[in-house]
Amino acid sequence: MLDNIRIVLIETSHSGNIGSAARAMKTMGLSELYLVSPKQGIDEQAIALSAGAGDVVKNAVVVERFEQAVGDCSLLIGTSARLRHLQNSLIEPCQCGEITMQAAKCGEKVAIIFGRERVGLTNDELLKCRYHLTIPANPDYSSLNLAMAVQLVCYELRMAFLSQTAQEMPVVAIENTVKNTALLATAQQLEYFFEHTERLYQSLGFIQNQGVMQKLRRLYQRAAVEQNELNILRGMLTAVEKHLYFHKE
Amino acid sequence: MLDNIRIVLIETSHSGNIGSAARAMKTMGLSELYLVSPKQGIDEQAIALSAGAGDVVKNAVVVERFEQAVGDCSLLIGTSARLRHLQNSLIEPCQCGEITMQAAKCGEKVAIIFGRERVGLTNDELLKCRYHLTIPANPDYSSLNLAMAVQLVCYELRMAFLSQTAQEMPVVAIENTVKNTALLATAQQLEYFFEHTERLYQSLGFIQNQGVMQKLRRLYQRAAVEQNELNILRGMLTAVEKHLYFHKE
Repeated sequence: MLDNIRIVLIETSHSGNIGSAARAMKTMGLSELYLVSPKQGIDEQAIALSAGAGDVVKNAVVVERFEQAVGDCSLLIGTSARLRHLQNSLIEPCQCGEITMQAAKCGEKVAIIFGRERVGLTNDELLKCRYHLTIPANPDYSSLNLAMAVQLVCYELRMAFLSQTAQEMPVVAIENTVKNTALLATAQQLEYFFEHTERLYQSLGFIQNQGVMQKLRRLYQRAAVEQNELNILRGMLTAVEKHLYFHKE
Repeated sequence: MLDNIRIVLIETSHSGNIGSAARAMKTMGLSELYLVSPKQGIDEQAIALSAGAGDVVKNAVVVERFEQAVGDCSLLIGTSARLRHLQNSLIEPCQCGEITMQAAKCGEKVAIIFGRERVGLTNDELLKCRYHLTIPANPDYSSLNLAMAVQLVCYELRMAFLSQTAQEMPVVAIENTVKNTALLATAQQLEYFFEHTERLYQSLGFIQNQGVMQKLRRLYQRAAVEQNELNILRGMLTAVEKHLYFHKE
C-alpha cells in the first residue's frame, strides 16, 4: 500500500534537504520521490545526507512542472503553514495518514506535496490539492525544517499503515505475540510470596501491623510481577531466612 | 505542562544534532534540554542548525553523568531501537505522549532520554528507565537521524498536550487529581534503593551476578514505586542489616 504514495518536493533550495527527506521517507517505508525543478539537483550533499537511503535519492524522478509530478495521481494533498483561508479542506498529519491509506488501499495513487523551504506552495498549487495538510506546531516558532516535516508526515502514514495491517493480522501471528510475553505470577503464587514476606519480617520485628503488608500488596499487584521475578523475590526471602536459622543453631 | 518535560541527549557525537534537536523541540513547544558529556559541545554548528531556537541551545544544561541529568526526575523514558527483551515496558511515541502529559499534568518531572547516534543507550541506562520508547520504523531501514527521532517524540508530546488542553478540565478536578496522586520516588532515590539491595544481598551471598539486579530494576521501574512504598522497602533492607550486625557483634 505504501508504494501507492508519492512524496513531491517543489523547487527545493538545498540538495541536503532532498537527501534528508529521502532518509526520512525510507525509515517509514516510503520510496517514491518526485522533485520539481530543484535549485540544487542531486549531488554529493544529497547522497551524503540520505545515509542508507541513497536508492531513494537515485531513483527520484526530476521534472520541470508541478503537473508532471502529480498528473497520474488521483489524490493530491498539499502542505502549508499558512492555510487560514482553506478551513474546509484542512487536515492534520494523523488524518492525512488515515485518508491517504484509505485511498492507497483502494489502489488510488496519492501525492503528498511539500513546498519551497521559505515560501511553501503557491496559492495556485494549493488550489490543485483536494486536502491541505498543516502541522499544528508552536505558534511562537513554527519553522519546521523541510525534511522534519516530511518525517512527521511519513511517520503518520506508517502509523496508519500499521494499524490497517494490524486489523488484518492472522490469528497465528497474534498467538505468537502472546507467546512472546513473559508468564505472570498467579494470584496463588503472589499470595504465598506475601505470606512468606509477612512471616519473615514479623520475625525480624519490622512488621507490626497490617498497614505495611497492605502497601506492599498494592505495590506488587500494580507491578504485574512475572514468575521469574517472583522466584527472585522468594529467593531473597529464603537467603535472609537461611542466615537467621544459621545463627539460631 | 510542557515545561515539566526534559529532553536529555547522551554523548552526542555531532554538535549539529544538538542544534537540530533544539529546533525540533522548539517547533513543538519544548525548551528544556540537557546534554550528558557531548563529544562536540555547543559551537557555531549547533547554533547555526538550531535556526530560531538558539535560546534552547544556549540554555541547555551540560552535565558529565547520566544521573546528574535525571536525578530530580520521577519518570524516566529511554529511547532505543533494540528492545526485544523489554516487552512489558515498551511504548510507542503516541503512548509516550499520553503517559508523559498525564505525569506532567500532576506536577511530575519527566525526562525523555535519547542515546548516542550509533549505539544508543547502554543496557545499564535503559534499566534506569521506567518506560522504553521505540519508534515503529521500517524494519529494513530503521536508521532515524537523532534530531528526527526528537522531532517525532516532541510532535506526539504536543499532540497529547493539545488534546488535553482541548478537554479544558475544570480547575477543581485538576487539583483533586494532583492531591490524589502519591509522590513517586525520584530516579536518585530508586538508585540508592538498588545499591542498598545489591550491597545487602551480595553480603548474604544471594547476588553473584548482574542478572538478578537487572531483573529487579526492571520490576521496580515498571511498578512506578511511590515514596512511601520506597521507605518501606528501604526499611526492610535495614531490618535485615540490623540483624546481621547484631550477630556480628
